[in-house]
Amino acid sequence: MTTLQRMSDVPGGMLGPLLGSDRVAATLDGQAWLAALLDVEVALTHAAAGQGLVDAADVVGVVAAAATLRSGLDPAVLAAEAVEGGNPVIPLARRLRAAAGTAGGAVHPGATSQDVMDTALVLLVRAAAAVIGDDLAAAAAAAARLGAGHRDTPMAARTLGQQALPTTFGLVAAGWCAGLDRARHGLAEVVAALPVQFGGAAGTLAASHPDGPAVADALADRLGLPRQDVPWHTERSRIGELAGALGVAAGACAKPATDVVLLAATEVGEVSEAEPGGSSSMPHKRNPVAAVTARASAHRAPGLVATLLAAADHEHQRAAGAWHCEWPALTDLLLATGGAAARLRTCLDGLVVHPDAMARNLSLIDAGGIPHHAGELVDRILAHRR
Amino acid sequence: MTTLQRMSDVPGGMLGPLLGSDRVAATLDGQAWLAALLDVEVALTHAAAGQGLVDAADVVGVVAAAATLRSGLDPAVLAAEAVEGGNPVIPLARRLRAAAGTAGGAVHPGATSQDVMDTALVLLVRAAAAVIGDDLAAAAAAAARLGAGHRDTPMAARTLGQQALPTTFGLVAAGWCAGLDRARHGLAEVVAALPVQFGGAAGTLAASHPDGPAVADALADRLGLPRQDVPWHTERSRIGELAGALGVAAGACAKPATDVVLLAATEVGEVSEAEPGGSSSMPHKRNPVAAVTARASAHRAPGLVATLLAAADHEHQRAAGAWHCEWPALTDLLLATGGAAARLRTCLDGLVVHPDAMARNLSLIDAGGIPHHAGELVDRILAHRR
Amino acid sequence: MTTLQRMSDVPGGMLGPLLGSDRVAATLDGQAWLAALLDVEVALTHAAAGQGLVDAADVVGVVAAAATLRSGLDPAVLAAEAVEGGNPVIPLARRLRAAAGTAGGAVHPGATSQDVMDTALVLLVRAAAAVIGDDLAAAAAAAARLGAGHRDTPMAARTLGQQALPTTFGLVAAGWCAGLDRARHGLAEVVAALPVQFGGAAGTLAASHPDGPAVADALADRLGLPRQDVPWHTERSRIGELAGALGVAAGACAKPATDVVLLAATEVGEVSEAEPGGSSSMPHKRNPVAAVTARASAHRAPGLVATLLAAADHEHQRAAGAWHCEWPALTDLLLATGGAAARLRTCLDGLVVHPDAMARNLSLIDAGGIPHHAGELVDRILAHRR
Amino acid sequence: MTTLQRMSDVPGGMLGPLLGSDRVAATLDGQAWLAALLDVEVALTHAAAGQGLVDAADVVGVVAAAATLRSGLDPAVLAAEAVEGGNPVIPLARRLRAAAGTAGGAVHPGATSQDVMDTALVLLVRAAAAVIGDDLAAAAAAAARLGAGHRDTPMAARTLGQQALPTTFGLVAAGWCAGLDRARHGLAEVVAALPVQFGGAAGTLAASHPDGPAVADALADRLGLPRQDVPWHTERSRIGELAGALGVAAGACAKPATDVVLLAATEVGEVSEAEPGGSSSMPHKRNPVAAVTARASAHRAPGLVATLLAAADHEHQRAAGAWHCEWPALTDLLLATGGAAARLRTCLDGLVVHPDAMARNLSLIDAGGIPHHAGELVDRILAHRR
Repeated sequence: MTTLQRMSDVPGGMLGPLLGSDRVAATLDGQAWLAALLDVEVALTHAAAGQGLVDAADVVGVVAAAATLRSGLDPAVLAAEAVEGGNPVIPLARRLRAAAGTAGGAVHPGATSQDVMDTALVLLVRAAAAVIGDDLAAAAAAAARLGAGHRDTPMAARTLGQQALPTTFGLVAAGWCAGLDRARHGLAEVVAALPVQFGGAAGTLAASHPDGPAVADALADRLGLPRQDVPWHTERSRIGELAGALGVAAGACAKPATDVVLLAATEVGEVSEAEPGGSSSMPHKRNPVAAVTARASAHRAPGLVATLLAAADHEHQRAAGAWHCEWPALTDLLLATGGAAARLRTCLDGLVVHPDAMARNLSLIDAGGIPHHAGELVDRILAHRR
Repeated sequence: MTTLQRMSDVPGGMLGPLLGSDRVAATLDGQAWLAALLDVEVALTHAAAGQGLVDAADVVGVVAAAATLRSGLDPAVLAAEAVEGGNPVIPLARRLRAAAGTAGGAVHPGATSQDVMDTALVLLVRAAAAVIGDDLAAAAAAAARLGAGHRDTPMAARTLGQQALPTTFGLVAAGWCAGLDRARHGLAEVVAALPVQFGGAAGTLAASHPDGPAVADALADRLGLPRQDVPWHTERSRIGELAGALGVAAGACAKPATDVVLLAATEVGEVSEAEPGGSSSMPHKRNPVAAVTARASAHRAPGLVATLLAAADHEHQRAAGAWHCEWPALTDLLLATGGAAARLRTCLDGLVVHPDAMARNLSLIDAGGIPHHAGELVDRILAHRR
Repeated sequence: MTTLQRMSDVPGGMLGPLLGSDRVAATLDGQAWLAALLDVEVALTHAAAGQGLVDAADVVGVVAAAATLRSGLDPAVLAAEAVEGGNPVIPLARRLRAAAGTAGGAVHPGATSQDVMDTALVLLVRAAAAVIGDDLAAAAAAAARLGAGHRDTPMAARTLGQQALPTTFGLVAAGWCAGLDRARHGLAEVVAALPVQFGGAAGTLAASHPDGPAVADALADRLGLPRQDVPWHTERSRIGELAGALGVAAGACAKPATDVVLLAATEVGEVSEAEPGGSSSMPHKRNPVAAVTARASAHRAPGLVATLLAAADHEHQRAAGAWHCEWPALTDLLLATGGAAARLRTCLDGLVVHPDAMARNLSLIDAGGIPHHAGELVDRILAHRR
Repeated sequence: MTTLQRMSDVPGGMLGPLLGSDRVAATLDGQAWLAALLDVEVALTHAAAGQGLVDAADVVGVVAAAATLRSGLDPAVLAAEAVEGGNPVIPLARRLRAAAGTAGGAVHPGATSQDVMDTALVLLVRAAAAVIGDDLAAAAAAAARLGAGHRDTPMAARTLGQQALPTTFGLVAAGWCAGLDRARHGLAEVVAALPVQFGGAAGTLAASHPDGPAVADALADRLGLPRQDVPWHTERSRIGELAGALGVAAGACAKPATDVVLLAATEVGEVSEAEPGGSSSMPHKRNPVAAVTARASAHRAPGLVATLLAAADHEHQRAAGAWHCEWPALTDLLLATGGAAARLRTCLDGLVVHPDAMARNLSLIDAGGIPHHAGELVDRILAHRR
């Protein structure tokens, strides 16, 4: 068993299906990393050839070499080779040059490892965030359906744990929808703005002179990424913004999940999950397992956001640790937020609502008329959905 | 000595001038809170009168009562009274009603405590963020001046702590500027979008029927705040976004501060602060105290962001703790980010650059020519400043 | 209004009585800091005189000078003076020397600022932790009383929010007691082990040669602190251990507070606070305000612990920021944990238990016999209390 | 490719060898989890049989069934099955019962899922912590060797980044040793105290009446674990203490790693790693890659500690999310701390010291005599090693 294989099925893996999202995980696995790194290298060779920085005749050789590595190189082997130099691009570029033979001179032109790592990371983030966005959208759609369907279903509003006055379940669910929509758009906006990274060893583009900026732009264009203004090797606001948006999205998932757990409590009984978890010893249990695990995933996010924000001061022109720390922290944050969204989607998709229980509980404090304006607020949220 | 006075000069106070920002603190003190809470109450009475929810003849009485409390009520007394009910709006509304006499019926119409607290918090955040933005802008301007002034001053780029290839100090400083500008605009955008809060006890606007939404809009308009779509008592994405933007801003301050500490190291000696701190026992010391304290302030931010993000799941229709937790955490985060910006501004405003030391250090690895493209990148950053 | 006064009544102050602990705050205010710093300086002069490092005849002059400053120096003035050099010991030593006149040579012998700051911090932490320990002990005692008094009161155990099988309220409360006791002892152990700090500018004790270690030990003895093994200027495990213990204590407060909020929910109604908070608009509300604010305080702790742990890598022989960051973060953490303990004490001291509601709820799933072993477990916890 | 396999080689895996510890990972992988869970189930059957709770004749059948599952059950399959009920013990107990045939009645007697999960987690933590302790010990030993070998090697002490006065490299390295030793012992103490968990569904031991406590003790004895006082399903101080100790250990690794990065800087040049990382484009680079990656791993820890502390308030008798959140957070924290220790060990084991550079740098401020007491402090640290 290789090092990588052993690394791979730690409980983050074993517990992955339970707390995480298979679909997000698939966008971030070793094969996905290898493919993204090679995509960047190939696009860079193309871009450099287009500017005359490397021989256009060599492009085909690099493309072929990359294809060979893509299918033939075990990510675990690359991972092991990455230890020596501190990142996987060093051994990958070496292997790519070797595989390209006489075209090897067209590999990695003008680039530094961070150019390739950061750009590949952007590609992976886009893929992972697309899945997260899809789950957030589905969860929001489910909340919207609940909101519309129960627009006029009275229930008790509870403040500080105590019944306060009437609200409607429709307004509660529409509120979940609003938070999920907002988080989804916030995340999508940040992700869409993540640009290519290309600066060369010192971040000056000197190694791709006289066409550095043009190569950078061509690289972006080939990969379908926004162009960079300037290299951002150590200007990490974007990573912080991404972390923040993921943290907000996790929070937007936690809120409905917590509400579901509380509303599903035996004494409240106002909602239940479609497929509640059972218990081997207590056949009467109807555990809201999807909500529970959505909460568990979501609660991983804030600490990971803090890690990424704390890593913001990339000293000098390449950080001695803060950069490397981003890789696992960002991966974990994508998995945690992705898990929260996926599990919440499951929770809300089949949520069973019990209007009778809502009415019964509400009768403890109130006759239960539909509060004025509540339906109007539901309509407003649902009409303004983007 | 009152409770409040004792609370007030804990080391967060005593050490405040050192690590914090007087100007930010002034926007968040007890008097500022009292004023903001009263501003919201008065505006609410106006707005409700405009919709006929309260008697227009009573407005003048409420305005007068608020003016009395503004100058005559000790925030410490209000703070002590807040304990019983769990927030200061309950005793404030009571006092305001009493002070308004026969006009008391026009106080706090249709509102819940959270409406007033959240809206006041938005007012305070706007004031604090304006100061932070001013310090960020001044720090960025100083960085821009350094960038322009040293556009062609060669220095060693350092990666993983090791000299790599030449860059210019102008590009380094322009990079600081880019991060600060980006953080400033990100923060301003989030703050500007913070809306009024008005929902009533259950968040349904029922208590201001039939004109709830109109009252909410009028309240926003009077306070110069964006209108709400719907009440956001427990949809706290905005708080998370604000926390994230403040965390990013703190990181944007930490980066140049760390660079200054490293570049000011005795063996490097490439920059020094205008007024370095001394040492009673070591007369040769030239400590970059402003950068040091900027870092210290900035490093407080990530944990506070995590606290705010973790508080996102406001359960039911008013959270039993998560809401209250926002107050100190957000205050501390504004002070920490504000301290980082203020201290960095001091650091960069008078930063002394030593091109000769840069040249000497660079000669360890290179003859020190100006790297191609570096000046162009400086120009690009400075030209694109917003 | 001075800088310090403005700093002092920020909302962490205004909201302090609500979320915090007056008694903890009093141990950490400006006057307390000033007194502690002077205590250390005076003890140091005594200790150095005892070893012949300074003239014994000068001791009385330093003592008198310190007494003058203690009553006559405004901490706010010292705070403002601290900005220039980056800590308050530099101006304090200068003032103390001036006030001591001809005895000034006996001030601050062989010491560096961090020696005085760290030792004073240890004194303050001991004082604050004593108060926190007292509140934890009182809360635990209240929990123990509840445990004993309801040893055989059946209630529903709830797992994942669902009723599971019977337990007793006595066992639940005894579990709270166990956590609080454990946290209290853990905190006390860490605090008791915090030693004096004395190393001189480079941490070598060179400036107090030939009796450096003896001076350090005499200083510890005079202050009633454990002796240091060696200076620990940049070996900050103790700060991390302290942070961890405070974080655990906050968590031990959060657990019962959360349970109280949930058990006090309208539909559950199994406990209520002695003096629940009211609502101006909803006279039926019985908000468990003490539990709510205990939770809010406790939830501030984890992020602050992270800040202190992240500050552990004090580079070189005095950290450029990580050291300074400890001051506000540790102060806030003491206040947060202290607030949680104080508010939980209030919550549990007067907690009203409703066995009839427990029986009624339990009847939803079970006839409600007392579970075997439960009383035995209560007895075991209460008998093993330390 | 199964779900688990896809989960397994996410970058936390791919980047694992670079930032993590293979040896720690091996103690936490899917096979290790499966083995630990089965170890607990088998020990429980033995313990219950010993008390007459199950038929002693059935033990052999359960042992055989467990052996079959141990070698034949794919952890990935179990992971997938865990989703339905929210933890892997539910499907594992079901499979074990089925495999045991007529002895199935002796499976999982009196237990709840959390009993098995928590006890297995303790087993895994002990295994992982043993590896971490070994790496910490080896790193400390390397630091001790450096301390002894350079007891009298003068170098500049640096405070706030500036040269201050002389110290010795021996004292610096001995300080690293002190921190690592302290962290190791603190971690070992916490881990050794982690007890068995056995409480049954409601935490009352009712399901193992009349011998619940005896079964719990027998279970502990069979597994070589400390006995529990009482079940600790929701009294999570131990998890917080463990998190704190791991956070402190990570910090103890970060401090020397940061010092190495700074001392290895081109302009300082006082140390270098035995096998520095190279750069494909800059042949002169000598990157301190082990220190860099030790820092990166260590910096993951504080946020994860915060997550675990924030999860302390396990509500009711089994937390709806806080419990589940512990699994990935604790795993990640063990991997992060383990990675920091392993990489630091590599860094310090071969650290090359350059006394000439130390002397040259020191000459900038001082003639470079050995400071008084420094050697004595080194001796004290090394003599007091435990």
